[in-house]
Amino acid sequence: MTGATLSHLDAAGNATMVDVSGKATTLREAVAKGRITMRRTTLDMILSGTAPKGDVLATARIAGIMAAKKTSDLIPLCHPLALSSVKVDLAPVADDTGIEITARVRTTGPTGVEMEALTAVCVAGLTLYDMCKAVDRDMEIGQICLHHKSGGASGLYERTAPPSR
Amino acid sequence: MTGATLSHLDAAGNATMVDVSGKATTLREAVAKGRITMRRTTLDMILSGTAPKGDVLATARIAGIMAAKKTSDLIPLCHPLALSSVKVDLAPVADDTGIEITARVRTTGPTGVEMEALTAVCVAGLTLYDMCKAVDRDMEIGQICLHHKSGGASGLYERTAPPSR
Amino acid sequence: MTGATLSHLDAAGNATMVDVSGKATTLREAVAKGRITMRRTTLDMILSGTAPKGDVLATARIAGIMAAKKTSDLIPLCHPLALSSVKVDLAPVADDTGIEITARVRTTGPTGVEMEALTAVCVAGLTLYDMCKAVDRDMEIGQICLHHKSGGASGLYERTAPPSR
Amino acid sequence: MTGATLSHLDAAGNATMVDVSGKATTLREAVAKGRITMRRTTLDMILSGTAPKGDVLATARIAGIMAAKKTSDLIPLCHPLALSSVKVDLAPVADDTGIEITARVRTTGPTGVEMEALTAVCVAGLTLYDMCKAVDRDMEIGQICLHHKSGGASGLYERTAPPSR
Amino acid sequence: MTGATLSHLDAAGNATMVDVSGKATTLREAVAKGRITMRRTTLDMILSGTAPKGDVLATARIAGIMAAKKTSDLIPLCHPLALSSVKVDLAPVADDTGIEITARVRTTGPTGVEMEALTAVCVAGLTLYDMCKAVDRDMEIGQICLHHKSGGASGLYERTAPPSR
Amino acid sequence: MTGATLSHLDAAGNATMVDVSGKATTLREAVAKGRITMRRTTLDMILSGTAPKGDVLATARIAGIMAAKKTSDLIPLCHPLALSSVKVDLAPVADDTGIEITARVRTTGPTGVEMEALTAVCVAGLTLYDMCKAVDRDMEIGQICLHHKSGGASGLYERTAPPSR
Repeated sequence: MTGATLSHLDAAGNATMVDVSGKATTLREAVAKGRITMRRTTLDMILSGTAPKGDVLATARIAGIMAAKKTSDLIPLCHPLALSSVKVDLAPVADDTGIEITARVRTTGPTGVEMEALTAVCVAGLTLYDMCKAVDRDMEIGQICLHHKSGGASGLYERTAPPSR
Repeated sequence: MTGATLSHLDAAGNATMVDVSGKATTLREAVAKGRITMRRTTLDMILSGTAPKGDVLATARIAGIMAAKKTSDLIPLCHPLALSSVKVDLAPVADDTGIEITARVRTTGPTGVEMEALTAVCVAGLTLYDMCKAVDRDMEIGQICLHHKSGGASGLYERTAPPSR
Repeated sequence: MTGATLSHLDAAGNATMVDVSGKATTLREAVAKGRITMRRTTLDMILSGTAPKGDVLATARIAGIMAAKKTSDLIPLCHPLALSSVKVDLAPVADDTGIEITARVRTTGPTGVEMEALTAVCVAGLTLYDMCKAVDRDMEIGQICLHHKSGGASGLYERTAPPSR
Repeated sequence: MTGATLSHLDAAGNATMVDVSGKATTLREAVAKGRITMRRTTLDMILSGTAPKGDVLATARIAGIMAAKKTSDLIPLCHPLALSSVKVDLAPVADDTGIEITARVRTTGPTGVEMEALTAVCVAGLTLYDMCKAVDRDMEIGQICLHHKSGGASGLYERTAPPSR
Repeated sequence: MTGATLSHLDAAGNATMVDVSGKATTLREAVAKGRITMRRTTLDMILSGTAPKGDVLATARIAGIMAAKKTSDLIPLCHPLALSSVKVDLAPVADDTGIEITARVRTTGPTGVEMEALTAVCVAGLTLYDMCKAVDRDMEIGQICLHHKSGGASGLYERTAPPSR
Repeated sequence: MTGATLSHLDAAGNATMVDVSGKATTLREAVAKGRITMRRTTLDMILSGTAPKGDVLATARIAGIMAAKKTSDLIPLCHPLALSSVKVDLAPVADDTGIEITARVRTTGPTGVEMEALTAVCVAGLTLYDMCKAVDRDMEIGQICLHHKSGGASGLYERTAPPSR
């Protein structure tokens, strides 16, 4: 990326929404992941029983989906987009230290949807924090990064860097 | 916290907005932090020059402040609150691997503002990601946690756990 | 509809936004209706005079149109859509027991607009309730259903079931 | 209510937001109900199994709660309010023809919360419609009315009129 | 105002939401005005007849009222406030060159409502522009300023400067 | 424009969102301008120094860009649009009496973007007012008008009328 510059600043260094009117309308997809770490007892509280589990995870999943639709309202220079699919998955991490959040977003449009996927992950994590904070204030949200991106002129991206560098 | 339960679920395990009508209206404050890690060259691009620096950091700061005001619209069971102060600080981390985000929020009301502070941190981080993603897609947002909380019946909280456990 | 399943749940029963990226972009239209029933004296108050009538009905009509545009922000799994037309009509019902609300919405896109039409009807009804509640708290909003839908793979739908079954 | 007038119109018949600056700040509560009627097979699909049930009902419940917080954004002349509690219950109606929706909202403020409760009912109903419309387009939302209101100068209201008059 | 500084910048020049947690909760009011100038024939089109007049002016009035409630969502450093009254008046200017817009907003809170009144004026003007632009694209919105402000530590303000300086 | 009528009213004079489903999807652009006039000392405070300048102007610029994306949420009969570019420029006016605001918006869609450009100008102006109001309450926002519009059936528009007629 020799000579690369920050795309959201004009020549004078002012913030600007990048002009995408010349970009092709293609199918684009992005996958982002993140996790919320918590005490083992907190995780057990979420996973044990059936009814509570349903609503804690369901609430976070729905919050993540709805947040993806609000991305351009939250991120100042993001383009508004008509999303064609949003999927948010929540699963305990392997060592039972928390919950991993995965968001997959698709659109047919002129720009990518990595910000929508990342926003869904963040807000799902924040919602889990909110619902468990009465029993555990030490929770931490992290490892939020892009894992896959396809479609558009920049081509395929698959994350290779290890998390939490 | 023996016998603690998830406050946002009723006896049947259904999601519910906690009733705060009996809680005292007091001055409450919360501080949350997080960071976005990036390549050294990406960080240099943000920090070098004067105009670009102004707008990249200014945009993230404003996005964080505005997001704090949208918290109850994003997090399903959060109470709407009249915030009395929101401050978002951005500074390079000591080893030049990224930018640390600190949000401080105050209100005079019946509930705490930790979710507002955490939301401001997340959205400021997402905005930095958005503005730099054209040059660095490997960035990672993490270490998002509550550092301080005061006011209200639950008393003072100061984070003692090390980050990234 | 043998073998039909709830389209907004994945195989594990989790809420998900249906993927419409493979669906054709066609002209789609939906018509929904509903009504608010009220005391005869309340209805007279809305209809009598000229200025008051203008603003009560105008306010409800505008609220309905604006709500159609907010549908994907209200209904968690609805796709955001670029609406090409929204029309809300309000008329006294034949026996003077209230006001009938009709919403007609059009788009050129990959999904139908029945939720937008139904949302416009609901919010127009809620607005009429709000403006008249000081004189009549017994009002009731009901008979909200889809009457017509065209465009897209599922073809034409015309409601045949009688209302208030 | 002799001499009653529509409170949201000024002397010239123009829409206006009622001035509540002189009203007392007291605890106020409102309960609204409504129902969505559907085919028996559609209802079975919602209620059978455990995971699907969780997410269909959970999604509608969360949508209703979030909509209560958006009431003043939807209803033009509604005052913005800091809600202290929102609860949405969903239960099959006695004769298995659909689902009854009950919303209970509380605030400590200068105006009532009946519009917030009614809005939560409507949007929970619309969300159920959205999630089941792929298998049943004949569903109908109705019987939306206020059942209880307390607090404030106008005193206690308990609905006595039978539904669907 | 010797030594006055821009209140929304901290010592380092960074944007910040002013801390109002120490300010008194009092009744505050603000009045703002502005106008949209247009061709005589455009104005006649708005004012002639009864039904059209109702809806053009009613739509602008409602848009202005709703915008006042969205002020803190639009203006980055504005505090969210519970407004107790919003009134928007529209009247032809004396020489028939357009429409004068007046917004009066009240709250009982720790900060003033001049931004809410100014925002209502702007959005009412933009709505009039939108509804008339098919016949007149030369319209101009201007003379938007604060005319009155009372309540709070800064005391009474009455505009004395002539418009359009 | 003989026989021209207000496009947002139907035959009965009711407000309606114009049906654009038959209009061509083309590249459209609009440029709007406006200004905020202020005391010389207020302008100096914005322009002097480097850090403060960055954040006052940056905040207004970002507020304007974000407002363009909210246009259809503010203006009742505006169509929601997927904007492809938004640019907001701020510069001192020639005689140092204030700041001129220019917004340029582009889309590829069935309707024009003049309302988006005008909304960006208004909200950038309101944000400048908000940030400077502690030192100057006499500021005035005005001369808001469309300067250029291209694309679509109505063809090219270039403003020729002098400002502040």
